[in-house]
Formats: sequence, structure tokens, C-alpha cells
Amino acid sequence: MAVKSAGIREVAELAGVSVTTVSHVLNDTPHTRVADETRERVRRAAKTLGYGPNRAAQALRTNRSGLIGLLSEEIATTPHAGRIILGAQNAAREHDLTLVIINTEREANGASHRDDVQALIDRQVDAVLYATMYHRRVSLPPNLQSLPTVLIDSTDRAGIVPAVVPDEVGGAVAAVSHLVEAGHRRIGFLNNDDDVPATHGRFEGYRRVLEEHGIPFDPALVASAPSETLPGHELAREMLSMPDRPTALFCYNDRMAMGAYRAAMELGLSIPDDLSIVGFDNQELIAANLFPGLTTVALPHYEMGVWAVETLVRLLHGEADHRVLADEPTLLDCPLVIRGSVTAPRTH
Amino acid sequence: MAVKSAGIREVAELAGVSVTTVSHVLNDTPHTRVADETRERVRRAAKTLGYGPNRAAQALRTNRSGLIGLLSEEIATTPHAGRIILGAQNAAREHDLTLVIINTEREANGASHRDDVQALIDRQVDAVLYATMYHRRVSLPPNLQSLPTVLIDSTDRAGIVPAVVPDEVGGAVAAVSHLVEAGHRRIGFLNNDDDVPATHGRFEGYRRVLEEHGIPFDPALVASAPSETLPGHELAREMLSMPDRPTALFCYNDRMAMGAYRAAMELGLSIPDDLSIVGFDNQELIAANLFPGLTTVALPHYEMGVWAVETLVRLLHGEADHRVLADEPTLLDCPLVIRGSVTAPRTH
Repeated sequence: MAVKSAGIREVAELAGVSVTTVSHVLNDTPHTRVADETRERVRRAAKTLGYGPNRAAQALRTNRSGLIGLLSEEIATTPHAGRIILGAQNAAREHDLTLVIINTEREANGASHRDDVQALIDRQVDAVLYATMYHRRVSLPPNLQSLPTVLIDSTDRAGIVPAVVPDEVGGAVAAVSHLVEAGHRRIGFLNNDDDVPATHGRFEGYRRVLEEHGIPFDPALVASAPSETLPGHELAREMLSMPDRPTALFCYNDRMAMGAYRAAMELGLSIPDDLSIVGFDNQELIAANLFPGLTTVALPHYEMGVWAVETLVRLLHGEADHRVLADEPTLLDCPLVIRGSVTAPRTH
Repeated sequence: MAVKSAGIREVAELAGVSVTTVSHVLNDTPHTRVADETRERVRRAAKTLGYGPNRAAQALRTNRSGLIGLLSEEIATTPHAGRIILGAQNAAREHDLTLVIINTEREANGASHRDDVQALIDRQVDAVLYATMYHRRVSLPPNLQSLPTVLIDSTDRAGIVPAVVPDEVGGAVAAVSHLVEAGHRRIGFLNNDDDVPATHGRFEGYRRVLEEHGIPFDPALVASAPSETLPGHELAREMLSMPDRPTALFCYNDRMAMGAYRAAMELGLSIPDDLSIVGFDNQELIAANLFPGLTTVALPHYEMGVWAVETLVRLLHGEADHRVLADEPTLLDCPLVIRGSVTAPRTH
């Protein structure tokens, strides 16, 4: 099936230059004098003939493979991994790098993570992106230390690898501010009960907005459970059955919000007229398909993918100091996505 | 940050053999006589020192890069792409191949698809997987002809590239049979209105089951609309308001089923006691989070990824004939996933 592709000789012939000149131009060999016009002619000839650089030869010569390894968790269960991959890939393409992907198990023991890293080392990747599927702290396999690495959606327990994570506090501030600006003052918060950064960060954002607006904190308006639909449903039923029920709910994620929708319906509360709801995650399959559409907060997966590749490139070029970067994780914005689940509270 | 890794000399020293022997063993050079025990010792030494083959040198020597390109659509919007990637990656690892991924735009013009293929050619991939995110017919970019290729979830208009697709008819047969076996005879079908293989295949499966069980086909029980939640809601409201309403609905996909759930609730029909529902796609975020969980049909994305890589490997090794494979797309099973939305109809 394979077709013989054009060689460097054909390119030289079409451009009317020597093979050496073609090689210098296409490999950007430093300290060679070739007129801009000639360079342009060579590049055009190479493009016309579909002649590309021999990557394997290039890799041997430069000791750079042009490959970036992406170790990604749970690529098959959420669209989050897809958005990280898309962002990383688009940024990689800008720098003529190619993404090599290995799926790694979340609950894997250290040995299996080491094997995944070894596979990338064998493949001679220039650097590694290590992406987790929810924001948390991780201990990295020891063999990863031999490669420039950036963490996506997690921070390094040892504090030596640069990381990019969502600004959980800022996202919660955006969500709760939106409710306060619509006129709500009794705002319930259905939180996750896992000890992860998002649980603490979103709670901090919730409290911060109340405080800024002089709204007293009421512990009866905060409840926690596993961040799934059924627990969200139960918490919402309880909270909405209180005599002085909240007029709005901020939910830890869209799945809990989906449970809250169901609870509202069972209690005869119409969304948004009787109850406003804001979620978190912007899981399109849920948020865009609920009635009415769920106003929620988006996680910056695409943007984290882009940031991670840009940062690796700067590290590889010596344009960034990884110790400075590793000092504090970089926070990216979690923007509000407005759909139809928030309006002003009814005046009693 | 990079650490100098062990070289072939260190491996030879640890194993107590010559550098040439190490090279023969690790490269599986044909026609070389090395005792099994020595081979084992060399491999153990290489593993101990973390010495891997130099892939770039190997690629130059063998004219094989060990890379498989995956052109994938809409990697960022559904978990389907993730499952294809996971299947392809697990199979690739079995054969010591690495997956290189490029996201391609669904609505892209021919030129941009050609550029995506060119990027893979430049990267010297050995073969290409071309994955679409829903089952349809495609015209392939002309430069793809220079590489062994397998299509995932689509078929080639020109009929020259092997393809693997879901068995749409079989999936619908499984879904509707499940309803008939539960005792239903008035089964509505909310279909998609796009002219794609899934629309026709799922309708064929629906009709086939009715026929097999001697249930007369009633055109009033089939309706079509765009395959989204809102149109599903509208179709279900209409059909469930008929005097002789169906006792069960088979929905083209989980999004339409989600709309049908809402319609049932509005009409005071309890699922599954008053109405049984089966979906298609097994979009976990919807199917597992509805009340009750949605019984649905799974698409074989993971399995198609595995099949595609295994087939490429057989093509590369000359163990399969691509003309025979290209003759008819290979169909993979769409199995039923049972949750809580089906029971026997109430006896009137």
C-alpha cells in the first residue's frame, strides 16, 4: 500500500539548488548563508512534493524526538481528558511537537505508573505531561525525575514539579456572586464530602462571597455527601423541606445539581422561578440537557492542556525556571457558563 | 533536569557479554545464535539498568517508526473518543507500538484533513486509524492512500479501506427484544431524522423484532426528530398522550430518552411501572444518573479501537488481505446494559 514519497534530490531539482542547500534550509542549520528568496523556493518545492524532514534522522542528530508524552488518567470515562488532549495537541502543533498518549490507571500501584513512565522514556519523549482527572495532590513515580514534567490538574506532594490547576475558589466566587447579584440571600451549598482541594476551595469561595455581601453564614444551609446524583437528590430534598428553605442552591458539581433538579420537581418547585441552581464542571451532557439548561462553572481543561505544553516548551528552551514555577501551582480561571437555571427570587 | 541513562556498554558489562550480543538480543536480530539463558541475562540486565532500545536508530534501520497515528474527531466533546483511544492504546501496547493522536475537525474542509494526514506522514507513522464520532460514510483525504489505514465508526465511500462499525441492527434487536420479553406489545420508537446508518439500522432492528414476534407494525408508534433531549421530550409527550399509548419506548439515543423521562414525569407516568424505556449509546453521565437508571445499548468504542489496531498489525505483517477486509465493514456487537427502566406492562 505504501507509495514512495519524494526525496531530497527531487526537492533540490525542483528548487534549482543543491541537496546541501535543501538540507540546510529544511533543517534550519545555524550559521549557513542562504538568501531568503532561495529559502522560500526550497520550502515551496518541499511542500509541493510533500517532502518532510526525516524525523528519525533528526532525532538521532538533535537528541530530540519532537515527542511529548501525555500520561492521562481515565481517558475513557469523562470528556475532561479529551479537552486536555485537545488543548495540549493544538499547542504542541504550534511548536511542531507531537503528542504521544498513554492512559494510566487512577488506582494503579506505583509499579504500574513506573511502567507507564518507562514506556515514554523508551519512546525517547522530550518531556511529559502528567494529567489527573480531578484536582488533587500526587506522588510521582521516581523515574519521572529524568524528564522535564508538568502536572495538569494536580500538585506534586514533593513540590518539585510545576503544576497547573483550576482556580476552585475563583470559580465558586463566580457562581455564588451570580446568585447574590440575582437577589438571593438564602443560598444553600451542596458540597462534596471528599478531602480534595475542590471541596475546600469551593467552600471557601462560597463563604467569601457571603462575607463580602454581609450575608450571615448559616451552617444549616451547607450539607455534604458523595458528589453523585443520588446523594445530591437526598441533600436537596432535606434542605428544600426546611421551613425557611433556601431560594437558591450552589451545587458542588453538575451531577449533584441533577439530583437537586429532581428534588425540586418532586417538591413542586419550578426552576428557576421557585428555586435557582448553579452547578460546577460544565458537563455538557448534563448541563445542556436538563430542563431548563443548568447555569454552571466550566473547568479549564483545554486551557490547562495549552498552558502545560507552552510551559514545557519554555522549560526545554531554558526560558523558564522550573523551581520558580514549582513554587506555587499556576491557577487558571473557571468561568461561569450561563444557561437558564437562575433568576431573581420571588418576593414573598 | 535530564539524567544520563545507562548505555549498551553498561548492559553488556552487567550481563557479561559483548556489546554485539546485547544489540542482537535487544533488537531481535534474525539469524543470530544466542543461547536462551544468555538472552534472558541480557534482558534482565537491560531492565535493571533501565536501558531501552534507541527508537530513533531503530526507526532508521527498520524503516518502521513504531508509531500508529490516530486521527480522531471531536475528542473533546464525548467520552466516545476516549474509549476508542483506550482500546487502541491497550492493543498498541501489546504490540510495542505507540499511539500518536491528532484531533481533526468534523466539518473541516478537505484541505485541513489533508494537513492532518500530512502531519502524520511527516512523523513517519507506520499506519493510521481514522476515527469518526458517529457512524457514517466518509471520503478520505487522498494523501492517506500512501499509508495502511483502518476506519473506526465509519465506512469508506470508495470502498477501499477496511472499516469497523457498530452492529446497529443487532443493538436495536437486543433493545426491542428485551421489551418484548418483558411482555410489551405496544412499543413506540423515537427515531433520529438524520440520514445516517444508525437511523436506518435501528429502525430495521425494531421492525425485525416486531415481525419475529408477530406484532403488527403501527406507523403511529414511530416518530422522528433531531436526536436531542428537547425533540425527544416533544415526541414522547405526543405519543404518550395518544388514547392507546405505548407501554414502552425504544429511544434512538440516551439524550432522546432523557427527554422521554421528563415527558413521562409531566404526564404522571412512573418509570418503569407505567412506562418502560430503553435508550441507545450508554452515555454513562445520562444513563447512570437518571431516576431510575436507564437500560440502554452500549456502543463498542473500546472494542473498535482494539480491533482496528489488531487489524493494522495484521496488515503490516501481511497476515491479512486488505481487499477482503475492505469488501464489507466488520460489525461489532452492541450489548444491552440493564439498569432500572424496564419492567412488565401493567395489566389493564
